[in-house]
Amino acid sequence: MVYDLIIVGGGPAGITAGIYAGRQRLNTLLITKSFGGQIARKAVDIENYPGFKKISGIDLIKKLRDHLKNYKIETEETSVVKIDKKGGVFSISTSNKKKFGARIVIVASGADPRHLEVPGEKKFIGKGVSYCTACDGPLFAKKNVAVIGGGNSGFEAAIALERIAKKIYILEYSEKPAAEKINQEIVKGIKKATVITNVVLKKIDGKDFVESISYQDRKTKKNKKLAVEGVFVEIGYQPADSFVKGLVDFNDKDEIIVNPKTGQTKTPGLFAAGDVDDVPHKQIVIAGGEGAKAAISAFKYLKRKKL
Amino acid sequence: MVYDLIIVGGGPAGITAGIYAGRQRLNTLLITKSFGGQIARKAVDIENYPGFKKISGIDLIKKLRDHLKNYKIETEETSVVKIDKKGGVFSISTSNKKKFGARIVIVASGADPRHLEVPGEKKFIGKGVSYCTACDGPLFAKKNVAVIGGGNSGFEAAIALERIAKKIYILEYSEKPAAEKINQEIVKGIKKATVITNVVLKKIDGKDFVESISYQDRKTKKNKKLAVEGVFVEIGYQPADSFVKGLVDFNDKDEIIVNPKTGQTKTPGLFAAGDVDDVPHKQIVIAGGEGAKAAISAFKYLKRKKL
Repeated sequence: MVYDLIIVGGGPAGITAGIYAGRQRLNTLLITKSFGGQIARKAVDIENYPGFKKISGIDLIKKLRDHLKNYKIETEETSVVKIDKKGGVFSISTSNKKKFGARIVIVASGADPRHLEVPGEKKFIGKGVSYCTACDGPLFAKKNVAVIGGGNSGFEAAIALERIAKKIYILEYSEKPAAEKINQEIVKGIKKATVITNVVLKKIDGKDFVESISYQDRKTKKNKKLAVEGVFVEIGYQPADSFVKGLVDFNDKDEIIVNPKTGQTKTPGLFAAGDVDDVPHKQIVIAGGEGAKAAISAFKYLKRKKL
Repeated sequence: MVYDLIIVGGGPAGITAGIYAGRQRLNTLLITKSFGGQIARKAVDIENYPGFKKISGIDLIKKLRDHLKNYKIETEETSVVKIDKKGGVFSISTSNKKKFGARIVIVASGADPRHLEVPGEKKFIGKGVSYCTACDGPLFAKKNVAVIGGGNSGFEAAIALERIAKKIYILEYSEKPAAEKINQEIVKGIKKATVITNVVLKKIDGKDFVESISYQDRKTKKNKKLAVEGVFVEIGYQPADSFVKGLVDFNDKDEIIVNPKTGQTKTPGLFAAGDVDDVPHKQIVIAGGEGAKAAISAFKYLKRKKL
């Protein structure tokens, strides 16, 4: 059978697209590895999704999923391996060896954490190197840890680690951290946290587990070493969109280029929304808005085709 | 004194911009006639703002305002008459005869209901003709009413009137109503509601109050008359943006043309977001997303200028 619409991704963009598709009674399948997207990785409470002053990532995911369940949307928990288009129909292969057909696809598959690409990183994944403070933070009670990255997620990681770790170093490549003022103020008030800027990370060392990291100061060119047992990598995200190669254009960040008014990619009937596309400023409410736009545009596209 | 940022409008776009500006500690003033924007006019519960399965307009406005109050944002309840830019600073005049200065302005002033422009309309405003079912619906208990417009707001008006009115006619100019399927299904189940398409409304008649409406069937060219005491006008909105003439370009719907990735208008430092701009699909979550984009872009613009 061929669905009207397949949504790839279960974060705020995918779920919002699902809600809108359900309201339009589109015959819809949502395929996702897991629900929540970046929200599931949130180390601290969410305070910038309008309508909720303060809500944990887990609670917001639950509310979004409950909302989606109001509508008749099928779901399949797996990941997408490849999307092709033949004769006006999209064919979607998944890692659980299934194939699904759809007249429209909305890619809302989000992004995966970017890696440091320094010696020792791969070796110590799960042995001190973590890409999810919300998941792994509690393992580092009373230990010294480093957070790599001075953006919002780096600062939020440090805030989340305040009551857990002994000492927290935030390491940032630039002259100034890019985190929101409110997060910078909070970290200033955390005595055990130190922000170090102009950092070029060189390597991660240890025997069986992480014991230290080495970096160079970009200004003084001096090499330094910090004794830490945990390294939280928060240097941004890599769009999770390799399965759609050939059907879309990518920008230099590997984001899918879309018409920002509709989410339409260069392939008719193929839309993208949320962190995977080239709309700047990755925020929950922005992803939700892009998901709604894509679903409404998809519905209009479908109606035109049917007439 | 000159604010970092003035936001014009207190609907979802303006409030979201305010939350984001507050988090960045921008010295911000929000000017609005009233809070809520189109949400305040919602005749039925809101079911498509992700995270809330079902919430009344009043409750959602309260939640958004409470969220905004978490941050230090000044507010001024009045309407904006004119915005000028001189020497890199915006000057904003309000109908309560005040003047405010700002380095950045985000126009999120939404839209006002569009008028029918037929004989009798003006005469009977408040005497049977209404532009707000949520506000005026209860006045028409056990009376026959007409809703003009077959889009979502027209159908939602009819749904809201189900328990109030005696008979409900939905009149639509096109061949097919444009309302979401879910709303069309609900109205199908309302026995007292009749959808009439291909309607050209001709006039509204009565003595002191509305007594009837006359229309022509576009197909048969026949003239018809309906005995109604209430006329709810739901034919869309007119962007509330005349005060910004000269600083921005408008499209053919009088919407402010923006860069949809940032909300930037043609005047540097002047942004627009929500129903007032030319981003299609007027939805709460989309307006919120555009408000967030505009606030983040505004902050980046300000930082660049300060450096």
